[in-house]
Amino acid sequence: MDQQTEQLNSAQEAMYEGKAKRVYRTEDAGVYRVAYKDDATAFNGQKRGTIVGKGVVNNQMSNLFFQLLETKGVHTHFVKELSERETLVRALTMLPIEVVVRNLAAGSMASRLDLEEGMKLAHPIVEFYYKRDDLGDPLVTTDHIEALGLATPSDITQVKQMALRVNEVLSDVLRTVDVILVDFKLEFGKTDEGEILLADEISPDTCRYWDANTNEKLDKDRFRRDLGGVENAYAEMMRRVREVASL
Amino acid sequence: MDQQTEQLNSAQEAMYEGKAKRVYRTEDAGVYRVAYKDDATAFNGQKRGTIVGKGVVNNQMSNLFFQLLETKGVHTHFVKELSERETLVRALTMLPIEVVVRNLAAGSMASRLDLEEGMKLAHPIVEFYYKRDDLGDPLVTTDHIEALGLATPSDITQVKQMALRVNEVLSDVLRTVDVILVDFKLEFGKTDEGEILLADEISPDTCRYWDANTNEKLDKDRFRRDLGGVENAYAEMMRRVREVASL
Repeated sequence: MDQQTEQLNSAQEAMYEGKAKRVYRTEDAGVYRVAYKDDATAFNGQKRGTIVGKGVVNNQMSNLFFQLLETKGVHTHFVKELSERETLVRALTMLPIEVVVRNLAAGSMASRLDLEEGMKLAHPIVEFYYKRDDLGDPLVTTDHIEALGLATPSDITQVKQMALRVNEVLSDVLRTVDVILVDFKLEFGKTDEGEILLADEISPDTCRYWDANTNEKLDKDRFRRDLGGVENAYAEMMRRVREVASL
Repeated sequence: MDQQTEQLNSAQEAMYEGKAKRVYRTEDAGVYRVAYKDDATAFNGQKRGTIVGKGVVNNQMSNLFFQLLETKGVHTHFVKELSERETLVRALTMLPIEVVVRNLAAGSMASRLDLEEGMKLAHPIVEFYYKRDDLGDPLVTTDHIEALGLATPSDITQVKQMALRVNEVLSDVLRTVDVILVDFKLEFGKTDEGEILLADEISPDTCRYWDANTNEKLDKDRFRRDLGGVENAYAEMMRRVREVASL
């Protein structure tokens, strides 16, 4: 964090503090400033730790992906990278759902349904989770989302289409740097004009990345499962994504 | 159980024994004999007990509903009632999913999503659960059902339509005897010819029935939640369903 940013942060209270990021208001009501932390949590906050340099990787990787996605027709909240850890984004009303896209069975899907981790799915699957830490972020169907009033049917359709498009774009580019995009979590928000934008982050915290040759995990599962080499994995993924960006 | 049935059962090993029923082969390979027990379990077998007379109620209520549903265009496995506790049904290959229809939030939906029990849903909701006791019968989306190969997309569409039709028919007739059909669980199977039939049972074990005037529970929740008056509730529901049948 450079000195100027540090002064800014200490002078201003975060509007919102999450597990991995702080969000601040700016002078422009339509723009927020996001600051990425190195704090890591897993299993709904039951496991806590620090991944040195994670905030820098997650900020920069998200921004590279958001800019790539904009060129592919996916509108995002990205405005401008301010520093290694800080970015300006559009102020949105967030949809209270997490959208998960899966290409291979892994993580909670594999354990809930007794599937072998790495099992190829016949086609990508989109899942929705209700963002409620106190309920353990339960899986919900589109019927539940409607019944709870979390999003309209047309919102859900649009979010699902955008999520599948993100999957196509990212799977393709990651394949060029020998990374399999196993699954990932997205969040979306609405502008005051009602436009849905891709928000939050796209990083080793929110994606499962496997090396295409060795199946080595290059993501937060190294932290969740105590596999060691966490910082190296984040750095290696950043190196590969930069390679994509320079193609 | 009459003497003849008792002799039959003791002479023959059940092909399948579930929590509440035994299923036997018959001389006709296309027909099974189902025998309903008074054994009651809840919370995936963690709670066990006996509800005296339950087997008789569940057998007779299911059969009355199946015969009613046949007249309303819903094809079922029902063949013939043999005795108070025993019925002949079509031999089917069961789909390994439980289909739940909900009109009001209750039970697991209310607790998972933090909804008030009794909250009216804007429209009936159909949920699917993967029948796997060892996994706790997890909620699945239609994508999961396809990925696991539990049913085809066309099976799922058909099962959902049939379940909603069952809901219309039963909600309407139960309303005439002052019962609110809150939610219920159905199971389906396929004939050798590929026809999907409604199977299993429709009873106070598998439905939530609330008295329309007092909201009193007339179903297995009295057992699950130790509310007392379990046998009386089953008998009262049977009385009301007979009233429907004689309309």
